[in-house]
Amino acid sequence: MLENIDLTRCVAKDEYKKRKQSLELKLAELQRKAKDLKIPIMIVFEGWDAAGKGTLINNLILPMDPRGFNVFSTLPPNEEEAHRPFLWRFWKRTPANGRIAIFDRSWYRRVLVDRVEENIDNKELAQAFEDITSFERQLADDGNVIIKMFLHISKKEQKERFKKLTKNPATAWRVSEGDLKRHKQYKQYMRAIEDMLAETDSEYAPWTLIEAHDRRFADLKIFDTVITAIEDGIEKKEKRSGIKEAVSKMAKKVKAEQPDTLNSTVLDRIDTSKSLERDEYKKQLDEKQDELRELEHKIYLHRIPVMIAYEGWDAAGKGGNMRRLTQNLDPRGYEVVPIAAPNDIEKAHHYLWRFWNQMPKAGHITIYDRTWYGRVLVERVEGFCSEDEWRRAFREINEMEQHMTNFGAVIVKFWLHISKDEQLRRFKERQKTPHKQWKITDEDWRNREKWDKYKAAIEEMIFRTSTRNAPWTIVESNDKLHARIKCLDTVIKAIKSKL
Amino acid sequence: MLENIDLTRCVAKDEYKKRKQSLELKLAELQRKAKDLKIPIMIVFEGWDAAGKGTLINNLILPMDPRGFNVFSTLPPNEEEAHRPFLWRFWKRTPANGRIAIFDRSWYRRVLVDRVEENIDNKELAQAFEDITSFERQLADDGNVIIKMFLHISKKEQKERFKKLTKNPATAWRVSEGDLKRHKQYKQYMRAIEDMLAETDSEYAPWTLIEAHDRRFADLKIFDTVITAIEDGIEKKEKRSGIKEAVSKMAKKVKAEQPDTLNSTVLDRIDTSKSLERDEYKKQLDEKQDELRELEHKIYLHRIPVMIAYEGWDAAGKGGNMRRLTQNLDPRGYEVVPIAAPNDIEKAHHYLWRFWNQMPKAGHITIYDRTWYGRVLVERVEGFCSEDEWRRAFREINEMEQHMTNFGAVIVKFWLHISKDEQLRRFKERQKTPHKQWKITDEDWRNREKWDKYKAAIEEMIFRTSTRNAPWTIVESNDKLHARIKCLDTVIKAIKSKL
Repeated sequence: MLENIDLTRCVAKDEYKKRKQSLELKLAELQRKAKDLKIPIMIVFEGWDAAGKGTLINNLILPMDPRGFNVFSTLPPNEEEAHRPFLWRFWKRTPANGRIAIFDRSWYRRVLVDRVEENIDNKELAQAFEDITSFERQLADDGNVIIKMFLHISKKEQKERFKKLTKNPATAWRVSEGDLKRHKQYKQYMRAIEDMLAETDSEYAPWTLIEAHDRRFADLKIFDTVITAIEDGIEKKEKRSGIKEAVSKMAKKVKAEQPDTLNSTVLDRIDTSKSLERDEYKKQLDEKQDELRELEHKIYLHRIPVMIAYEGWDAAGKGGNMRRLTQNLDPRGYEVVPIAAPNDIEKAHHYLWRFWNQMPKAGHITIYDRTWYGRVLVERVEGFCSEDEWRRAFREINEMEQHMTNFGAVIVKFWLHISKDEQLRRFKERQKTPHKQWKITDEDWRNREKWDKYKAAIEEMIFRTSTRNAPWTIVESNDKLHARIKCLDTVIKAIKSKL
Repeated sequence: MLENIDLTRCVAKDEYKKRKQSLELKLAELQRKAKDLKIPIMIVFEGWDAAGKGTLINNLILPMDPRGFNVFSTLPPNEEEAHRPFLWRFWKRTPANGRIAIFDRSWYRRVLVDRVEENIDNKELAQAFEDITSFERQLADDGNVIIKMFLHISKKEQKERFKKLTKNPATAWRVSEGDLKRHKQYKQYMRAIEDMLAETDSEYAPWTLIEAHDRRFADLKIFDTVITAIEDGIEKKEKRSGIKEAVSKMAKKVKAEQPDTLNSTVLDRIDTSKSLERDEYKKQLDEKQDELRELEHKIYLHRIPVMIAYEGWDAAGKGGNMRRLTQNLDPRGYEVVPIAAPNDIEKAHHYLWRFWNQMPKAGHITIYDRTWYGRVLVERVEGFCSEDEWRRAFREINEMEQHMTNFGAVIVKFWLHISKDEQLRRFKERQKTPHKQWKITDEDWRNREKWDKYKAAIEEMIFRTSTRNAPWTIVESNDKLHARIKCLDTVIKAIKSKL
């Protein structure tokens, strides 16, 4: 298809000047408007070597307020990045609300250079397309405007540009061995590009082809594409606000709570009476802690990342459990990440953004004290997010965990389960014991009153996010000794099955 | 995860009776309401053999108005169905607006029985999950309420039920060889079911697990699930109507048309002057028609379905071109399907529904005189569908064509291109020539006035729907002889490359 694109399009200098000025003013105005409306914008530049990306990006940012955007050049991943799944560095760079992120090359590297040079196989390629699609969809669902442009020149034009650059000693350095190698592979790249355009074109993140033989034509078309997309985004955001008002004005039917007696349950069947004798516990604890330490060494050698997620009822014993898990580990190999309510910067991004920022490096263990599941637990029950948002989250979470699994990660998820009576006993004990009083707050009591609502949310979470690659383990925790050994054991088995 | 579900849940007879009556009245009321609001509803029952699907479906339909629903039992595909992709028979059965379709087993057969018994490989399995996901998403986007329930019983319970049935001569026939075989494979099926639940659970078509040991419990839960989902659907539909009003009340910004001079174009480069001498034409026509006839035989033997789509400007010569393509073919092996404006029944379904109904059988050729691309051409330009709808259509069309390709189809798509001048010449000639006058209408002239809008739509269509598996071929048609040979030639090459 690309070979049929008319690349002879051009714009005369006079016309260009005339149109350009108003486009620049318009873009600056739209940037301010998008900032006020807190719309995040992502602009992706892909294209052939020597297609003129650098110059064209410079033209684009010239009229913009420099405090409102970042330009990210995508080079081959550095060591830090190579130890993470390929989308990791781009998740980190997704713009906060109201900001613009411009990518000079992007996550599409995976399906272009990586594909052609590292011969990634069909399965990996299909996974990459899926990962990219869900990445963009998640961000678009969260309100991001995503603009993707491909700068197209013919093989002949590319050759001439390289020749011209090489002739001039001042610019010769700009033509690398890699450029020339890729030039020879023009046809192979063409195939990869056509696949990329076909597989990742969507209504929420469409591709625009920029004919880049004539710089003026390309420049106007880029401005026009960006302006149109931002205008659309603003219109949508305004509509949505209008809609929200309209909806809230409509009589909101109070939906009867689904009778609890019909919900599926796994929790009711959990035998919380499971326990372990202290002698047996001590023996097993020693053995298993030693075993885990050896495995910590092995996963480092095999560069396997491990994610261990702890969720559970208040006072279920998460802290003590985690301490037993990590007690004997080499501290250079693991990290415990406590998850509190999101801060302002985190709130200005997609809710998964902060978890992307805290993913384990290949060969390392990250233990999460509460997790991304907050979205479908506390945020759902307390109404901190909309129903659409937590419903969407089941899929988004599964996709994120799948992306980590594709990268080779081991994922273990614990739900520490205690009975309602046991929780009451522990709350009371905490209140009586001076050095434990800090652990118990009014909020804990308030949450306890919503036990049934939380229970329904937990059951649905377990049902919708128990995947083969990242299953939930429900840990009977009325007896802490039993719970600790079960967690150690589960982690050991999960790592072993990967090795 | 499934082995942890609490299957001991039950409901006492008195409570059951008390609750059941009001649920039945509610369901009947909701059916009427959904009919008035023209909401289509799909209810899927999957579950273990002997889980009680038949009885429970009967209970569900009892209070409903029988004129408003259909129950479809899904058996192994018959011969007609086996020669189509697996979703074909379900697309045909999607409910019209306001109707309810109940499926006793469904498209999930593909990832359950077919998977376990026919050992479909990982790639096919992944494709099936993708196909199912896009099928459900397309329907949900179009307003369908999709309710999916899985009836769960333990292996032990299943065994006891089979035993009981077998003991009684009146029911013994109901336990088949297949049932007993699948009972032995309970664990394998468990794995397939867990994958199915994980891969195809979504916010627009969620799964509900029905604990089916106690019939009364299962019955109440099914009613409750269906009622809640329909209530949600009604609420959403009402909201959407409210929103539409609200939006139309808001000042609708008239978006400036994107300056045409910047659009990507392949059409402008098409050399419409390409032509062929009549002698050469005749020679080639004979040769190629013979060759195609032979291929028609071969694709029949190899059970390959072939789809040939004709689109083009008015008066581009589609009719004559198609006639030359089919002139020498065996009429039992091909069919020409003319596509006009949709009728009322078609309008009450997803716009792709009628094309699913007209897909070629394996081994046959279907030639479409105008196609599903109407959505992104005439419907877009004339405003017969919303912008959301035609934007979504690019993906929906690609997915449908991909599904056909997965099934092994050859897809050829022609855009018959003539210059604007040539069209004028042909229009005038038609007006002058008495036996051609019927071919030219006021509408043709009106369409011609919108040449530029159509051109922009065509360019975008070609850009977004040229996939490797279903590429567009642009046919220079100012010279009809050249165009005819090019089409014949393209079809021949496409079939050959598949054989």
